[in-house]
Amino acid sequence: MATKSELEHFFATEFTQADFLIEEVGNRRATIRKRITEAHLRPGGTVSGPVLMEVADAALYVAILGELGLVAMAVTTSLNFNFLRKPVSDRDIIAECTLMKVGKALVVGEVSMYSEGDQEPVARAVGSYAIPPRK
Amino acid sequence: MATKSELEHFFATEFTQADFLIEEVGNRRATIRKRITEAHLRPGGTVSGPVLMEVADAALYVAILGELGLVAMAVTTSLNFNFLRKPVSDRDIIAECTLMKVGKALVVGEVSMYSEGDQEPVARAVGSYAIPPRK
Amino acid sequence: MATKSELEHFFATEFTQADFLIEEVGNRRATIRKRITEAHLRPGGTVSGPVLMEVADAALYVAILGELGLVAMAVTTSLNFNFLRKPVSDRDIIAECTLMKVGKALVVGEVSMYSEGDQEPVARAVGSYAIPPRK
Amino acid sequence: MATKSELEHFFATEFTQADFLIEEVGNRRATIRKRITEAHLRPGGTVSGPVLMEVADAALYVAILGELGLVAMAVTTSLNFNFLRKPVSDRDIIAECTLMKVGKALVVGEVSMYSEGDQEPVARAVGSYAIPPRK
Repeated sequence: MATKSELEHFFATEFTQADFLIEEVGNRRATIRKRITEAHLRPGGTVSGPVLMEVADAALYVAILGELGLVAMAVTTSLNFNFLRKPVSDRDIIAECTLMKVGKALVVGEVSMYSEGDQEPVARAVGSYAIPPRK
Repeated sequence: MATKSELEHFFATEFTQADFLIEEVGNRRATIRKRITEAHLRPGGTVSGPVLMEVADAALYVAILGELGLVAMAVTTSLNFNFLRKPVSDRDIIAECTLMKVGKALVVGEVSMYSEGDQEPVARAVGSYAIPPRK
Repeated sequence: MATKSELEHFFATEFTQADFLIEEVGNRRATIRKRITEAHLRPGGTVSGPVLMEVADAALYVAILGELGLVAMAVTTSLNFNFLRKPVSDRDIIAECTLMKVGKALVVGEVSMYSEGDQEPVARAVGSYAIPPRK
Repeated sequence: MATKSELEHFFATEFTQADFLIEEVGNRRATIRKRITEAHLRPGGTVSGPVLMEVADAALYVAILGELGLVAMAVTTSLNFNFLRKPVSDRDIIAECTLMKVGKALVVGEVSMYSEGDQEPVARAVGSYAIPPRK
């Protein structure tokens, strides 16, 4: 297991490209926030699909490291997205991840993404991760 | 919208191959039960994947008809499954469907499937349905 | 590896519910045929979605056993379907499977399904399988 | 329909964040190239998952605009990824998209992604797009 501050330190030092804030992590869950700026928008003023996909990937990774610890290797094997509504352009994206299965060899989690303050998700994702055997 | 008894009548008369019980339907949700018998098992004594897939498809269909009414045409465009745990052989499968989006042209729902009495889902599904324009 | 006749024997004796014909298997590929009868149709005269899903699952299983041998344990972890066209009611379904990855711990394959004689697929599937470590 | 040069002009003027080269487009297909630099790598020296997802999204969009023309509105409804092998760090990513269905209301396409020069794909994607009715 890894705590919020351990994860923040890890991303700040090892994953310097990571660009999100961890709001909560623990108990097979994680919530992260993506600050939305002009750079994340598509013509028409909505958050681009690839930004949502990157946020979902990050939320799953935070939840898995939070559960398995920083030494864990987790290899993404599949990621499925359903895009449900247009995110608004002037609010952060909040991604809430729940791990549905934490097995020895396989972890599966889902992510709901919201424009901050909205009840209805803008997108949903489900990801599968292979956990290599420890030697 | 269609009620539980309208849906039961519909499946009994129009979809005579349908083989499940509607437990609840309404408010963008549906719960159905699949009675598990020897015919649904795989070697090793677990409910087969295709049976779970059929149940998920049925739960989504019940939830959509419950929301849109019996006249609705809904064409399945995609169905994604994650298999999480082995179902036990001697309990019914309970499938709980929630519609995440009910748009004019697109409906998206998710299904969690359980061996009756268990807290942890045996499988999850997400389905997308195109709703043809009404003439 | 398992040959066509070994696989036919296996399904006839161990998987007596299996209901399809193996047309070809080998080189990370398999083609199977599902005879379509009244029992497989939906109102409106099209092959039902669950029948297509069962056929895809079978084609993937045949291709994996053909590649890894009959002793192989392969646990389905995810199955994703896209439904593209209505199958016609009076032709068999042909399912062609190709394994895209055959790793030690993970096998991924795709299936294209056709109404016999048509060029355009009625559905596509992608499946992931975990291979438990051999003891 | 839109030609390669029309599409290049479109992305250069309307989608200035787009960062890829169109190699070929036409006949329901598109091939694009993503130049890989340090900024696209993960610790361990492999191309990050979000970069692959962005490339797949772009390849699908190019193929759809190539087929339907620049006026087309296409709303991504689902995107499914299977990650098959680690991309190498020092080669471009080549994404080949084929549209499997081009309907009035729905377009479905698949993308195979490669480290340039390799035969085996590093990832596969399938995307669904809703086409709003023209007024």
